[in-house]
Amino acid sequence: VTVQAPLDPRQKAALSPSEARGYFRSETWQGSTRGFAFGRLQCGVVMLPQSEAADFLAFCTKNNAALPLLDMTPAGVPVTKAYAPDADLRTDVPLYRVFRDGELVDEVPNIKNYWRDDMVSFVLGCSMTFDSALLANGIPNRQLTETGKPSMYVTNIECEPTERFSGPLVVSMRPMLPAQAIRAIQVTSRFPKTHGAPNHFGDPAAIGIADIMKPDIGAPVRILDGEVPVFWPCIGTIWSVVARSKPPFFISHAPGCMFIADLSDEEMSVL
Amino acid sequence: VTVQAPLDPRQKAALSPSEARGYFRSETWQGSTRGFAFGRLQCGVVMLPQSEAADFLAFCTKNNAALPLLDMTPAGVPVTKAYAPDADLRTDVPLYRVFRDGELVDEVPNIKNYWRDDMVSFVLGCSMTFDSALLANGIPNRQLTETGKPSMYVTNIECEPTERFSGPLVVSMRPMLPAQAIRAIQVTSRFPKTHGAPNHFGDPAAIGIADIMKPDIGAPVRILDGEVPVFWPCIGTIWSVVARSKPPFFISHAPGCMFIADLSDEEMSVL
Repeated sequence: VTVQAPLDPRQKAALSPSEARGYFRSETWQGSTRGFAFGRLQCGVVMLPQSEAADFLAFCTKNNAALPLLDMTPAGVPVTKAYAPDADLRTDVPLYRVFRDGELVDEVPNIKNYWRDDMVSFVLGCSMTFDSALLANGIPNRQLTETGKPSMYVTNIECEPTERFSGPLVVSMRPMLPAQAIRAIQVTSRFPKTHGAPNHFGDPAAIGIADIMKPDIGAPVRILDGEVPVFWPCIGTIWSVVARSKPPFFISHAPGCMFIADLSDEEMSVL
Repeated sequence: VTVQAPLDPRQKAALSPSEARGYFRSETWQGSTRGFAFGRLQCGVVMLPQSEAADFLAFCTKNNAALPLLDMTPAGVPVTKAYAPDADLRTDVPLYRVFRDGELVDEVPNIKNYWRDDMVSFVLGCSMTFDSALLANGIPNRQLTETGKPSMYVTNIECEPTERFSGPLVVSMRPMLPAQAIRAIQVTSRFPKTHGAPNHFGDPAAIGIADIMKPDIGAPVRILDGEVPVFWPCIGTIWSVVARSKPPFFISHAPGCMFIADLSDEEMSVL
């Protein structure tokens, strides 16, 4: 199936994962995947040379809440058999970021020109996966309903380092009323493979965030009277880690531009 | 088994439910049951004439989070077969309160002199039941570890009324750090029969509490830097309802002076 025309929100939501990936592969859309193939698993993608793969795997394991590992491919095989066997991880994300020595050197709609046969791909859980559960529970999710962009903040919480990788935890934030936050904690606890429960709520300064209206990545959202910010460990952590650790060669999805897998969000729930 | 000497905290915790009830029945102890027979189900007890029992049952059902009904006895039978078949609900609570027309008229260690053959007893869940789970998770619980008394507040949230009963929701409060509150929400969500998850955290004024250091029932606890108050619907609601509804005759446990059942806390968990 090939879809190439511009889509309205309802059309985006109604796409199958395969159709959405085809739409991104056609390079018609290079923005956020939020709201596409609604209710299907959205994933982060990281690619790096095999020489660093074991250490990055260890880093994901030690920092599982921020970087929940869903799949790791063999070197040179850009396919996640378990999550989307028909997809090509090099083309099916709307936008990629390419880093050399920790510096962003390119932002491209496919990474065919950067691909090497020693590249290992990591598929990581993403909190967009519980967008559908939050929506079903009437919990505000303005990144979905208003801005379409993530709101990510670098914190003063250090990740557990490995030999090659270290950096501060990055969190995503959604504002809501306390009673809604209690429900959101219950709901998201069911999804440990896609970050699970929040790690903080309330005072942003307690985790080193100076200005809640100035996210480090993405865009801010409105915080209404009586609402508190609720923070989740976030896959955005990969970029703070790349900036600190300066790996020679590192490719990732661009913020908010995820890989959409075949599984439903609900299949990721533990309960 | 009869225990009558004063007990230290470790001895209190080590008592079996039957030993604890015998200790209370002996009228050696007329205080809080917190920490007694630790890990066993603590319950509220309400007794009222059969003529009002159906309406009170409806009130419990409509306000299940505050008044989770565990058992309701036949008229004239002061025994909860399901929770403690060998216990007498008229003698095995350390201290009772007797109300006439909504006014507290007596506080007594047994209600034998008030008992009538038309009395129906209600056994209700109590948040002391998750004391053991909170402790096991390293979550502060200063009512247990410091004051021994509950901290209850009348809110501006109206209970769902019935024909005979109405009144404002009363909540209990425990202060903790946000990350501990997130864990406490997960932990207590497993215990819907004993209030379950909190209904609010943070700003006390948002639910009509003017001064967090002045609970309406019980005693305050310290709130440390960075901690937020976390509020749970509370069985203390029975007293705000009695004050408003002025039933002709109403008996309850005194605050913090619960009925200890044979079941373990863990048996009350849904997961």
